[in-house]
Amino acid sequence: MEMEGKANGPSEGRTGRVDGPTNPMVTPLLNDLYQFTMAYAYWKAGKHNERSVFDLYFRKNPFGGEYTIFAGLEECIRFIANFKLTEDEISFVRDSLAGSCEDGFFDYLRGIDCSDVEVYAISEGSVVFPKVPLLRVEGPIAVVQLLETPFVNLINYASLVATNAARHRFVAGKSKMLLEFGLRRAQGPDGGIGASKYCYMGGFDSTSNVAAGKLFGIPLRGTHSHAFVSSFMSPDEIIEKSLKSVDGSSTCEDFVSLVQTWLSKIQWSKSLRGIFGETNQSELAAFTSYALAFPNNFLALVDTYDVIRSGIPNFCAVALALNDLGYKAVGIRLDSGDLAYLSCEARKFFHTIEKEFGVPGFEKMSITASNDLNEETLDALNKQGHEVNAFGIGTYLVTCYAQAALGCVFKLVEINNQPRIKLSEDVSKVSIPCKKRCYRLYGKEGYPLVDIMTGENEPSPKVGERILCRHPFNESKRAYVVPKQVEELLKCYWPGTSGKQREELPPLKDIRERCIKQLERMRSDHMRRLNPTPYKVSVSAKLYDFIHFLWLNEAPVGELQ
Amino acid sequence: MEMEGKANGPSEGRTGRVDGPTNPMVTPLLNDLYQFTMAYAYWKAGKHNERSVFDLYFRKNPFGGEYTIFAGLEECIRFIANFKLTEDEISFVRDSLAGSCEDGFFDYLRGIDCSDVEVYAISEGSVVFPKVPLLRVEGPIAVVQLLETPFVNLINYASLVATNAARHRFVAGKSKMLLEFGLRRAQGPDGGIGASKYCYMGGFDSTSNVAAGKLFGIPLRGTHSHAFVSSFMSPDEIIEKSLKSVDGSSTCEDFVSLVQTWLSKIQWSKSLRGIFGETNQSELAAFTSYALAFPNNFLALVDTYDVIRSGIPNFCAVALALNDLGYKAVGIRLDSGDLAYLSCEARKFFHTIEKEFGVPGFEKMSITASNDLNEETLDALNKQGHEVNAFGIGTYLVTCYAQAALGCVFKLVEINNQPRIKLSEDVSKVSIPCKKRCYRLYGKEGYPLVDIMTGENEPSPKVGERILCRHPFNESKRAYVVPKQVEELLKCYWPGTSGKQREELPPLKDIRERCIKQLERMRSDHMRRLNPTPYKVSVSAKLYDFIHFLWLNEAPVGELQ
Repeated sequence: MEMEGKANGPSEGRTGRVDGPTNPMVTPLLNDLYQFTMAYAYWKAGKHNERSVFDLYFRKNPFGGEYTIFAGLEECIRFIANFKLTEDEISFVRDSLAGSCEDGFFDYLRGIDCSDVEVYAISEGSVVFPKVPLLRVEGPIAVVQLLETPFVNLINYASLVATNAARHRFVAGKSKMLLEFGLRRAQGPDGGIGASKYCYMGGFDSTSNVAAGKLFGIPLRGTHSHAFVSSFMSPDEIIEKSLKSVDGSSTCEDFVSLVQTWLSKIQWSKSLRGIFGETNQSELAAFTSYALAFPNNFLALVDTYDVIRSGIPNFCAVALALNDLGYKAVGIRLDSGDLAYLSCEARKFFHTIEKEFGVPGFEKMSITASNDLNEETLDALNKQGHEVNAFGIGTYLVTCYAQAALGCVFKLVEINNQPRIKLSEDVSKVSIPCKKRCYRLYGKEGYPLVDIMTGENEPSPKVGERILCRHPFNESKRAYVVPKQVEELLKCYWPGTSGKQREELPPLKDIRERCIKQLERMRSDHMRRLNPTPYKVSVSAKLYDFIHFLWLNEAPVGELQ
Repeated sequence: MEMEGKANGPSEGRTGRVDGPTNPMVTPLLNDLYQFTMAYAYWKAGKHNERSVFDLYFRKNPFGGEYTIFAGLEECIRFIANFKLTEDEISFVRDSLAGSCEDGFFDYLRGIDCSDVEVYAISEGSVVFPKVPLLRVEGPIAVVQLLETPFVNLINYASLVATNAARHRFVAGKSKMLLEFGLRRAQGPDGGIGASKYCYMGGFDSTSNVAAGKLFGIPLRGTHSHAFVSSFMSPDEIIEKSLKSVDGSSTCEDFVSLVQTWLSKIQWSKSLRGIFGETNQSELAAFTSYALAFPNNFLALVDTYDVIRSGIPNFCAVALALNDLGYKAVGIRLDSGDLAYLSCEARKFFHTIEKEFGVPGFEKMSITASNDLNEETLDALNKQGHEVNAFGIGTYLVTCYAQAALGCVFKLVEINNQPRIKLSEDVSKVSIPCKKRCYRLYGKEGYPLVDIMTGENEPSPKVGERILCRHPFNESKRAYVVPKQVEELLKCYWPGTSGKQREELPPLKDIRERCIKQLERMRSDHMRRLNPTPYKVSVSAKLYDFIHFLWLNEAPVGELQ
């Protein structure tokens, strides 16, 4: 049953006011304690207002792939737009800091908000790559550090699950319906709500989660469970048996008998004889009852007892009875067993019904499959051949079972106009210093070729002009590029006091469109499931030199013994 | 820095009123759409008030183990205690059901609450096993089905992450401090808050999550990050340099110089000469500054530049300067590199300092380790030998990376006093019918021996009396047991209209105590990480016979062709 919810409207009204985060638990206290201990230490040292620049980025694409979908930006902007500590929160922080802090600090905390913070970000729903900042956050260091934990929390899972959804869509193909069914297995209540939002963003068609439908306007889907089927004993218990025809012109007084008549016809049909004997009566009662409630939207779960010997014949009997009254049944759902085999058997059965009883279109009945589906099982189903039209995907999708976390980090890259670097024995963990600009360069075939980071004041790459793109840490990896199109990636989503124009927060549907379009624009070798080609991320020659100058400067010189 | 938060108090006041769920997003709409379509179909068929019994249980212990911690009960009770659809929610459901439903149904929805629902449950924090109901929910079928998705959502992740925490505690051993640091990598904001709550329940000592500290009274921990270190350039920028001694009797006017003096002494000490040259000055400035802010709680992150050549000497210089003023530094945190090796080197360094400069206790300085720790890495550290006192664990803990979902299900077991069964070709998915009682039987050594389920009206197992325990599906697996203690597992947490006494919802600390005690009481072979012995779950002889009678009755008979 498809039911399109009404969105609660975009998050910003005409006044430019931005609503708070979707989850009211997202407050300044949704934070690691050390952000507050550091804030105090900065304040005590008189450093709290020093202008700092932090980059939020990840180091590795998830799921063994070579791309990621950036999601969670709107929630971050909603958070900073309403960032303010309440008296109650300040008093809790005071207690938590063990009474050792000076009072003036709490006056300071009372006064802070994000009016002096600037956030530049890649647009939500974009295809993104490791090391390139998703957000560049600039402001007084004590305030910006208080944003670290909430921002990383809001972006990590959002981007991970949107990417997971996009990967499932890639394997399933464009023509299939993808239904997100994950709420019950999600990691907590708003794990569920977030999953529904970001799976839709990543290319799913609908969710089962009513709250997400209400909050975000995502189409809702759902029919019935096994419990519904087994709650019936037999058709005898159905009391209200009448059903009007679809055009209201006539009434079938005993729809239960009509169904039973059709079931006998199917049982005695030449082509189907011997496939099944007695079907399960509680199932037949449940299907009949569901059809009486939703004659326009009859979709039945057919595996409570036995798909071939009970579920499908029972479904067909009800569907044919509905057909007599002008209704078109929607289809079946398979939730266990060999989905490839059962879907093909179901299709054959529908084909036989269509031919035997002359019901045009019966063969095209929709088949939905669920039951622990994931990228691998979708791929395996494709290889075996199947007749499934729609996939309901839950656990593996929403918990990101194949890789349950994305490692976004938030690193200081500049303070008081001084570039900063974070070293590590693991080169992949060395941060890229400086307040930067980021560009995506497109080639002549329209594909993105490379992302490049430059210092803030370097001239931007220009269409038709050759530019050297260097790997940030590997001196031998470099290439000249002559871009056919240059896209600046970081846009101003929160201008602080800079007076710049703020990018609007688009509705979820538009973000979803962007995501789907960007994915389609990628070169196919970056997208394949096995051994995808890494997309290139680079720095300008000038930034390369600067990184390595700073690195040598900060690393202690050893003494050989 | 340890900071103990104040809990917001227990969830029920003296009036017996139960507060709503911790997350205000947990509403009746946090539900799969099909619960509403089924509710309508039940209502349309006049079945909505039929008395039904559902069991909530899981089929397999997570993480390759043989036990699970049950968590999430309090949130479920808070949910049903406040279950009521608002007009706004009803109107959304109406729109979502595509306008095809009769008005009377929405009047019905308007009237429902959980006053006629009974919930029996195992106490939260208990060690639990597959197939045994964690909750038995009885009430009008349409209402009880509306509880399925929220209950399963609230219990699945809670139990999974509490179990994960208990497993980490088991490997780390009792003597180590375990700090939960997962908020930024959690699956959404209340994934983070839930993780903090349930990791504490499962045996962790503290969290970094301030909001969780406030909500649940969990001790808070946290000091500073790499960004704090790299935000400083050199000790020259420290302006306020004075520090009072711990007893307030004197003031050191230039603490920065005192630190630098100590650093030279360390550099020129006979035993340490040659280990390091110049330490990083921005790090020295950051440590000094942090000590000035928190002289009583100085714990430094020592791996921003180089642990051995910079972080540890810098830390020791500051700790020795603090020592001159009567303060005792807390210790260091290692967040990268070879934690076993580095912790041993750090301990040696502290030992040398203690001996060289005559500072008693310096060797015992606390060493905290973090950086992508999990069960395996803790186990490996134990095998290598290490000097770590406290582990900060994030990503792998809170996202349950090793297994991101627990498969709790909610199955109809009885309706109108008629037992119901859900069949499946996969025997492990066949449900155990009937409204049941569940017992844990203890042996003479005090260990739990077996859990047994019986029909509701069977006599309960008695201490000293022999009882036959049968595997529910394998006829050859059975054993006689003479219990030394019999514990009834399911207790009344929501009495409905039965007039029974309701079990109180204990404070989180008590639940944590229960969990730790129950884990200690288990036989060790069930608990080991490799090839643990499965704990036995059984049914009574009478229930066994009934399951198999019902199974034969419901399964369709095939026809050989």
